[in-house]
Amino acid sequence: MAVAVQLLRGAARGPPALALAAAVGRRALGSAPRGGVAAAGRGGRRAALAAAGALGGLGLGLWRRRQQAAMAASEEDEAEKKEEEELRQRFMAPPVSGLRELRRRRRELRSRMELLIMETQGEVCRALAALDPGASFAVDTWERKEGGGGISCVLQDGEVFEKAGVNVSLVSGLLSEEAARQMRSRGRSLKAKDGKLPFCAMGVSSVIHPKNPHVPTMHFNYRYFEIEEADGTKQWWFGGGTDLTPTYLNEEDAVHFHKTLKEACDKHDLKLYPKYKKWCDDYFYIKHRGERRGIGGIFFDDMDSPSKEEVFQFVKSCAKAVVPCYIPIVKRHCHDSFTPEEKLWQQLRRGRYVEFNLVYDRGTKFGLLTPGSRIESILMSLPLTARWEYMHTPPESSKEAEILEVLRNPKDWVH
Amino acid sequence: MAVAVQLLRGAARGPPALALAAAVGRRALGSAPRGGVAAAGRGGRRAALAAAGALGGLGLGLWRRRQQAAMAASEEDEAEKKEEEELRQRFMAPPVSGLRELRRRRRELRSRMELLIMETQGEVCRALAALDPGASFAVDTWERKEGGGGISCVLQDGEVFEKAGVNVSLVSGLLSEEAARQMRSRGRSLKAKDGKLPFCAMGVSSVIHPKNPHVPTMHFNYRYFEIEEADGTKQWWFGGGTDLTPTYLNEEDAVHFHKTLKEACDKHDLKLYPKYKKWCDDYFYIKHRGERRGIGGIFFDDMDSPSKEEVFQFVKSCAKAVVPCYIPIVKRHCHDSFTPEEKLWQQLRRGRYVEFNLVYDRGTKFGLLTPGSRIESILMSLPLTARWEYMHTPPESSKEAEILEVLRNPKDWVH
Repeated sequence: MAVAVQLLRGAARGPPALALAAAVGRRALGSAPRGGVAAAGRGGRRAALAAAGALGGLGLGLWRRRQQAAMAASEEDEAEKKEEEELRQRFMAPPVSGLRELRRRRRELRSRMELLIMETQGEVCRALAALDPGASFAVDTWERKEGGGGISCVLQDGEVFEKAGVNVSLVSGLLSEEAARQMRSRGRSLKAKDGKLPFCAMGVSSVIHPKNPHVPTMHFNYRYFEIEEADGTKQWWFGGGTDLTPTYLNEEDAVHFHKTLKEACDKHDLKLYPKYKKWCDDYFYIKHRGERRGIGGIFFDDMDSPSKEEVFQFVKSCAKAVVPCYIPIVKRHCHDSFTPEEKLWQQLRRGRYVEFNLVYDRGTKFGLLTPGSRIESILMSLPLTARWEYMHTPPESSKEAEILEVLRNPKDWVH
Repeated sequence: MAVAVQLLRGAARGPPALALAAAVGRRALGSAPRGGVAAAGRGGRRAALAAAGALGGLGLGLWRRRQQAAMAASEEDEAEKKEEEELRQRFMAPPVSGLRELRRRRRELRSRMELLIMETQGEVCRALAALDPGASFAVDTWERKEGGGGISCVLQDGEVFEKAGVNVSLVSGLLSEEAARQMRSRGRSLKAKDGKLPFCAMGVSSVIHPKNPHVPTMHFNYRYFEIEEADGTKQWWFGGGTDLTPTYLNEEDAVHFHKTLKEACDKHDLKLYPKYKKWCDDYFYIKHRGERRGIGGIFFDDMDSPSKEEVFQFVKSCAKAVVPCYIPIVKRHCHDSFTPEEKLWQQLRRGRYVEFNLVYDRGTKFGLLTPGSRIESILMSLPLTARWEYMHTPPESSKEAEILEVLRNPKDWVH
């Protein structure tokens, strides 16, 4: 297996002028909250340009001011290094847009979202790696020649996890005809200019397939989308969700998972959990089987109200809930004993997982339709192994029939 | 595994009047060629109706003629029984339309095609079963409440074959909105009456996944389609193909396979093989991987010229070529030794097979979109087991890289 592991190198990618501008405004970021969201730092770039202009003069007053500025800059360099070091420990690799560029446009939502998805990737990878000490994540950064890139973290064939992937991607450029058609088909009116729709999409997505059939598969994805229309206005929305796919039903796990998600939603609006729980059951529906992929969780798309800030805060709460949702379940069951028959049933359920992802999943379809997208990262969601038996039907009242019943008729887990 | 095996029972399904009509005309079928195609028997039904009318009279002459008719009918009963017995031995189960009904409308192309697909199913199943003596085909007949039905024959987990399915289906009713959209998108103009498009589709399709990585997977499918438009005119066309998916390249096998197909095509028109060979390479293209599914064969669709009869004869030649194309290759390699690494590479290639079938295959999509279609028969094409490894790349100049090269740049095998 040839994995290009790119270790952390300096994060500055912008041209020198921007780097200076970013440096002048950097103090504000030094105290950024742990969530990686840089909310402060007014007028950073403007101040920098003014300073650069002033340096052209030759008066003594200016000279002194220059010395003072140099001292301040040195302090700021220290602060910047410290902050970079902190981020380096939290992130799996440098962000696609570069830390300096992110700092420069720190107030824009797309920058805050990029930091959030990087932060989430780091958190989840660290939590998983801690449970599977013999294995480690291969970290793979890639660029997309049409615009953007990503960081794929994959742990394969570990003791606890068969395949665990946590992927960050940021894709920008022009929306493909087919992708635009797909978006319009779900009700978006997109006015293209000369047939072109500049867009930017970013997200963190992850699928965790454990080895033990008593540990469920978990998936989450949080994403942000911007499209520029013909008249220059921007459409934006968030989407995402977290859902669980057990091989066997464990009610206690199901309740814990759903309750944790509900708490994250309830902080923002009591209507969100019931709405997005139902959406999840509806979305992860394998129509040709009449079954859901798993026991659900939450799912939402096209979320663009009440406001950008409020939706972002909601998405942040959901992303922060991933580890507390799932890790306790893995810990509880990763040493459970299991039979070859239970492993076989897990493999058949993995087959259904593949069916959903390749036939119905909107994210996978969008990825496969986007020219230049990184196929290995998109199909990272597929399990290491899967199985299809013709006409397999579990006996009545078996544990296999029990989970099928719940997949056919979703339950309410929190009331 | 619960498989409803329906053994051969009497094939008469038509109402009595039709049965009589069929009986009077049956002699013509008694000498049908082995291909199962009833080409003769003029005016069968008309003659029967005339006889039925005559029996209403009471004169002595009529009485004698009635006795003679009864004796003739008894002879014909014998001939019919003999013929049914012959078909019973050739077919895996009674045809969906029933033998009597097929006899009644024997001159219609849809009847001749149904006999051909039944015949092909029997031939292929017998040839495969002969190579895997410990295993046997589960024969499963099913009905579709919206119209039609099918016969699925599946051999699973044998000595030689991991999963071998040969499926006959005949589906009729009204075309779904989505299926009509798909057909229009490839250039068919379909004028619906009140949004309704009555259709009839039938075909034989098969995927054979052997255990040994040195025996290739083979797929074939031959099908016939009729759609009735608003003004009552019928659009019809044939489609089909046979193609090979090896885990490792064996040039001798590739040449044998393509040459056998070319010979079948050349009997009809020298232009067919090159055209359909290219179509096959283009069709079985896994776009997101930049690879073909296998080393090709032939593929065609929407074939509606030069004439219904000529296209049918061509399809018949192709169907008859399946066994000579494939069986010698299985015999040659089914006892080859192999390593665990070779088995692993086979499993990864099985993963690509699943990707093609679920993401691109038109037949699978049509099946999944057709309400009431039999999912187990459609997804019978999926292998028993498959594998997805993140970023798997075989070493340069390896046998694995050799087959990838051919999948990326298809070769001409017969010149």
